[in-house]
Amino acid sequence: CPSPLHLSPSMSPPPLSTSEGSLELNAISLLSSSSSFPSSSPSDVSQKPLSLVSHSLEFVSLYFCIQINCVTFPLPSVTPDQPEQQLLKPNEWSYCDYFWTDKKDPQGTPSVGGFEVLLQKQLKGKQMQKEMAEFVRERIKIEDEYSKNLSKLSQSPLAAQEEGTLGEAWAQLKRSCHDEAEVHLKFSNKLQCEVEKPLLTFRDNFKKELKKYDHHIIDLRKQLASRYAGVEKARKALADRQKDLEVKTQQLDIKHMNKHEEDIKKARRKSTQAGDELMHNVDLYNRAQSKWFEEMVTTSLELERLEVERVEMIRQDLRQYTTLRHETDMFNQSTVEPVDQLLQSVDPAKDRELWVQEHKTGELRPVDMDI
Amino acid sequence: CPSPLHLSPSMSPPPLSTSEGSLELNAISLLSSSSSFPSSSPSDVSQKPLSLVSHSLEFVSLYFCIQINCVTFPLPSVTPDQPEQQLLKPNEWSYCDYFWTDKKDPQGTPSVGGFEVLLQKQLKGKQMQKEMAEFVRERIKIEDEYSKNLSKLSQSPLAAQEEGTLGEAWAQLKRSCHDEAEVHLKFSNKLQCEVEKPLLTFRDNFKKELKKYDHHIIDLRKQLASRYAGVEKARKALADRQKDLEVKTQQLDIKHMNKHEEDIKKARRKSTQAGDELMHNVDLYNRAQSKWFEEMVTTSLELERLEVERVEMIRQDLRQYTTLRHETDMFNQSTVEPVDQLLQSVDPAKDRELWVQEHKTGELRPVDMDI
Repeated sequence: CPSPLHLSPSMSPPPLSTSEGSLELNAISLLSSSSSFPSSSPSDVSQKPLSLVSHSLEFVSLYFCIQINCVTFPLPSVTPDQPEQQLLKPNEWSYCDYFWTDKKDPQGTPSVGGFEVLLQKQLKGKQMQKEMAEFVRERIKIEDEYSKNLSKLSQSPLAAQEEGTLGEAWAQLKRSCHDEAEVHLKFSNKLQCEVEKPLLTFRDNFKKELKKYDHHIIDLRKQLASRYAGVEKARKALADRQKDLEVKTQQLDIKHMNKHEEDIKKARRKSTQAGDELMHNVDLYNRAQSKWFEEMVTTSLELERLEVERVEMIRQDLRQYTTLRHETDMFNQSTVEPVDQLLQSVDPAKDRELWVQEHKTGELRPVDMDI
Repeated sequence: CPSPLHLSPSMSPPPLSTSEGSLELNAISLLSSSSSFPSSSPSDVSQKPLSLVSHSLEFVSLYFCIQINCVTFPLPSVTPDQPEQQLLKPNEWSYCDYFWTDKKDPQGTPSVGGFEVLLQKQLKGKQMQKEMAEFVRERIKIEDEYSKNLSKLSQSPLAAQEEGTLGEAWAQLKRSCHDEAEVHLKFSNKLQCEVEKPLLTFRDNFKKELKKYDHHIIDLRKQLASRYAGVEKARKALADRQKDLEVKTQQLDIKHMNKHEEDIKKARRKSTQAGDELMHNVDLYNRAQSKWFEEMVTTSLELERLEVERVEMIRQDLRQYTTLRHETDMFNQSTVEPVDQLLQSVDPAKDRELWVQEHKTGELRPVDMDI
């Protein structure tokens, strides 16, 4: 199976820069090799696979596979619903089923491995999580300041000399202000321990694991490229030998018939050896591709698991946020109730009685003066 | 009724300074007069009225009233439960029943009119109300700042690129932060219109009315003191005339019997005239005291009404505060609910499906290379 559609010689994708900038994905060095068949542009493959198939019908029947960046795929006429291509995890939209081809850049050139697309998704997810933690941190700051201000206000001596039942209600109103401050301080502390911190701790392991997966898949892809080069070389050697044998067979050298027959025999042996060598290289290549395939499946399933974990963790975290918000509002309500109760007991007549008892100067009324 | 307990010659109380300092109560200029009776210290009157009565039993039977700072009171043996001294508003602890005597300073000297005590209460009440408004103003500032900070946070672009159902929940969480900001802004605005403003508008009329009452009662008290001086002067004139008559009656001047009888007749006439003059002055005094009495009752009832009004107004105001607080907490709760709903819809599988559909690179799996 010579490669009928070998794509883009000397492709070297630019290093990926992530929005975080801390982890730079190592670019896969895609090895280039020349092809003896006319190459079609990769956009033809993706955009018009059917027309391509119909145009090239004469060699569709001859070649059963195509190579893109050293990976061997079935022809585009094969579809995922055919028995031999059925999804590994049907109906699950699993990462392991949808990222076999390299991603094309805006010019239509395959520039990024499918696995890199998955990694970018994870990196973006990590970044989102970090930004959510930052958002929560900002909220914590706002709550701290609000609490500090309310607490300070509650300690103000303003109208502290108000007396009687009204004085009691007023003192309770100030205490409720202090209680509110406490409620918001508690909210802030819980936000930190129960929302911000979990968002940040998850991150570290996540980063390490990503790097490990990244290096592993890049190595396997390099090995595959190297094996592919080996196959190409062996295929060229075989072609050379076959041509040599053909030339020699057609030459008629009556002068040295014996030596001629010896040469043909030797060329045939060398051609057979080159055929064996090609078979061996194809075998090595297939093993490398198989290894890569297995690791792609395993690792993308792991990334899928990590993403589910991330979404679930954030969901839980944000639920904790709303729970704390609910609690805060409820506790806040309860700080007002004692004020309401004391306001209901405010009684101007009672306050007058208390005040008059304390401050009265004399209740004997003036009388007329007698002479 | 000569004054058996005329108190404190040349008393001039220091000007009252209020905590607000804007309204200075005019001091009552208490006129002084000398007394022909040994004066008892005022603290004796208030602290041991019964022992005083028993010690002075010989003139208790002679004099039925005492004067304190030109006001005529029944003797301390008379109690408020006796029919002629029954309270004007029994069981109401009304201002009009308990502030007839002047207030004593720490040295036991009556220094401040009972009415001034009532005015000080009003001034203090006004000050308390002003301080409550200040407290509310501080709260408004705190709410404004909190709202501003929440609003700013809600507009932050943090984690704005989170996708799928999780992205929707996150966006709603930010919107809820904005809604909270709105709730607190509304709280702040309503605090200003419905709590702070009413506390401040009540104040202006209140101040004017107090000044009016103050001047009026001070004038009446000055008139009373002036009338009292008139009585004292007439009493002294009568005593002089009576002494003169007595001396003349006991003299035996046989030489000038006719002239002597004429002198006695003249002295008797002058004594009678002095007696009429005293009666006239006592009548003028009693009218002035009666006028003061009436105004004291009317005005202290008015102050009582103003104080009830103040307490009721503040009670209503603080109730409005708690109502707004309740509303705020409830509205805040409702800002969390849509977040809760979207968090319940967060589904990692759905998010993966959406993402894979958009970003998949190819689902055809690699196949073995044939030779």
